[in-house]
Amino acid sequence: MARPERRTMRDVRRNNQAMLLRTLYFAGPASRLELTGLTGLSAATVSSMTGDLLGENIIIGAGQVDSDGGRPRALLRVNPLYGYAIGVDVSETHVRVELFDLAMHERAKVEYVLRPARHDPELVARHILAGVDVVLSDAGVPPEQVLGVGVGVPGIVERGDGGLIHARSFGWDGVPLAALLRAGTSLPLHVENGAKAMAQAELWFGSGRGTGNAVIVLIGAGVGATVVAEGATLHGVTRSAGEWGHTKIVVGGRPCRCGGRGCLEAYIGAEAILERAGAPTHTAGWQEELAGVLASDSPVVAETLTYLGVGLANLINLLNPEQIVVGGWVGHLLGERLLPAVRAAVAENSLAQPYAATSIVLGNLGPDAVALGAATLVLEEFLSAAPAARMTAAV
Amino acid sequence: MARPERRTMRDVRRNNQAMLLRTLYFAGPASRLELTGLTGLSAATVSSMTGDLLGENIIIGAGQVDSDGGRPRALLRVNPLYGYAIGVDVSETHVRVELFDLAMHERAKVEYVLRPARHDPELVARHILAGVDVVLSDAGVPPEQVLGVGVGVPGIVERGDGGLIHARSFGWDGVPLAALLRAGTSLPLHVENGAKAMAQAELWFGSGRGTGNAVIVLIGAGVGATVVAEGATLHGVTRSAGEWGHTKIVVGGRPCRCGGRGCLEAYIGAEAILERAGAPTHTAGWQEELAGVLASDSPVVAETLTYLGVGLANLINLLNPEQIVVGGWVGHLLGERLLPAVRAAVAENSLAQPYAATSIVLGNLGPDAVALGAATLVLEEFLSAAPAARMTAAV
Ligand SMILES: [Zn+2]
Ligand SMILES: [Zn+2]
Repeated sequence: MARPERRTMRDVRRNNQAMLLRTLYFAGPASRLELTGLTGLSAATVSSMTGDLLGENIIIGAGQVDSDGGRPRALLRVNPLYGYAIGVDVSETHVRVELFDLAMHERAKVEYVLRPARHDPELVARHILAGVDVVLSDAGVPPEQVLGVGVGVPGIVERGDGGLIHARSFGWDGVPLAALLRAGTSLPLHVENGAKAMAQAELWFGSGRGTGNAVIVLIGAGVGATVVAEGATLHGVTRSAGEWGHTKIVVGGRPCRCGGRGCLEAYIGAEAILERAGAPTHTAGWQEELAGVLASDSPVVAETLTYLGVGLANLINLLNPEQIVVGGWVGHLLGERLLPAVRAAVAENSLAQPYAATSIVLGNLGPDAVALGAATLVLEEFLSAAPAARMTAAV
Repeated sequence: MARPERRTMRDVRRNNQAMLLRTLYFAGPASRLELTGLTGLSAATVSSMTGDLLGENIIIGAGQVDSDGGRPRALLRVNPLYGYAIGVDVSETHVRVELFDLAMHERAKVEYVLRPARHDPELVARHILAGVDVVLSDAGVPPEQVLGVGVGVPGIVERGDGGLIHARSFGWDGVPLAALLRAGTSLPLHVENGAKAMAQAELWFGSGRGTGNAVIVLIGAGVGATVVAEGATLHGVTRSAGEWGHTKIVVGGRPCRCGGRGCLEAYIGAEAILERAGAPTHTAGWQEELAGVLASDSPVVAETLTYLGVGLANLINLLNPEQIVVGGWVGHLLGERLLPAVRAAVAENSLAQPYAATSIVLGNLGPDAVALGAATLVLEEFLSAAPAARMTAAV
């Protein structure tokens, strides 16, 4: 029921161009004839636009394919070396910086360990800036070939240019990370919640591919979820949707670092599981520690499964998704060992119809997908805005 | 990132026609000139389509308005008497049938009381069919002027023509209500979950008007929620989204009639509140009984506020809506007396940023909005499909 806006011919051409590029990226290599079928654009439009994109080196030839009786058809694809995207994962334990080409193949990577509870914004910004320099020099890529830097961070990222970050677990309350980075780089920046960045990677390249109704959950030190409905990510009115970790599953229950009580994160976050097992938290080896707890016969394992089952069942009852993708390092530890038990716990706590409609799978990009996800923010911009801007003169 | 489908000129004309009609319905009366601005359609297209619609009596003149210096412009509007819509509310306590004109003004109404726990599907179908006859004869409207019958029911309505209903609270497990009604009427039928039907009414005509990101909650004997994201209702993959009442807020808590434990409905549904207060449930006067409990100084009141606060806060943390509209008869009882206390309980249990972005309001269509909501299903069909079908010959 939304009112359509007036669109100019230039808008139409931009949208069509972006659609063509996205189609080539996700469905290519493809011939011009296939592109007319896939996009619904006329042969003349496809021919003119592919000509422009070839001239810009944004797309390239990809061999040819025989056609029935006619001459062979040239295949086209997006040029994976047209530019590069940098993805940054800022987590409780580290700052990881990775360089990708446009095919999202990793070209270089560097990681800085954060000392537990030492998350000074200036330090994090310095790590990111140093990491950008390191990955570019390691891969021999000049900065002008970089299309942008995506940064995945915990907490809520305010909309708008300032992009203030509120992450209570970090002690960040209105941190202007983008502004801090601006002091050291002129590359385009995209700052987003890490769970949402990871979710985008799983949706585009991982387990969520092809699903229009999905929830991608991230379970690590923090716990979050990204809801995808009818193919669109639900951001919420101030872009803070997805705080699944702070939904309450036990009224008046365990205290949570958000200040509330009984939050899901206070039961299934890394810290919560270790605390309930009487193990030390936030140590250098806490990932191994947690793996040990989950492999043991501690009652904490069964309890954690119940809490996770309730948390996932709440998503199923409320949202009726086709798929739930479980990611994050704790999610992967749980899922790799215990996915059938997780499913059983979900079944016990959800209504039969929506449960039957949902498949619960482990994210197949692994626990380190946040940096890749952050880089897809750059890719998204490239696929929608950058070529359009470039084509303005040709309209 | 969805792939666009090929669209024929006929599809384009149908979509434009529906858009024009919707615009006139929600933004009218309007002149042809205003319609070009509101829809982005050309003056020639608006002129041709309004001519067709005037010829069909679907739209009518609505006076005229002076234009600067030129001749006065004729205003157009949707003809409120072009047809009628019937809305049916099937609830725990009654079957209510209401007749509306296309301006959604009520023309006639009849109600059948259901004895508690007596929800035989054949009996419900007989009440509906009898009610349709009664409201038509009361209003003097012949059946051929009725565009359809919308029926709001509890529980999950399966997609597809069969529309089997699963409503555990009714003891309905796969009830073919549409088929039962088919035996007695040839009017077009639209069966939908009552909470979703009510939500549509609040979104189109009530408190939710103009909100793109909202949750409309219904609290009665059953408890449900309708999520609206970016202007679109979230149905879920098998149309069972919205079972907010069966999300768990107390792991291992009070037994719920869904068979689970600790569901929100087991704390804030009508039955649950009365049971916790030691009052009789499902009596003829249980609405008054419940009003009495909520007006008392029973500790049950404060507890209920806490549970409702947690339930609403979970929606806010997960979905970051702009608005929450509270409806349903228990919702109205709670909201009319205690809305500030509800808001305080929500604030205590939600994150500060998304809480600050959400307004929590009482549905202003009142506790009886389900029948109106069900009738809007008919209106929706009229505004999107019916005129398009009619115009096929003209393409
Ligand atoms: Zn919390
Ligand atoms: Zn339940």
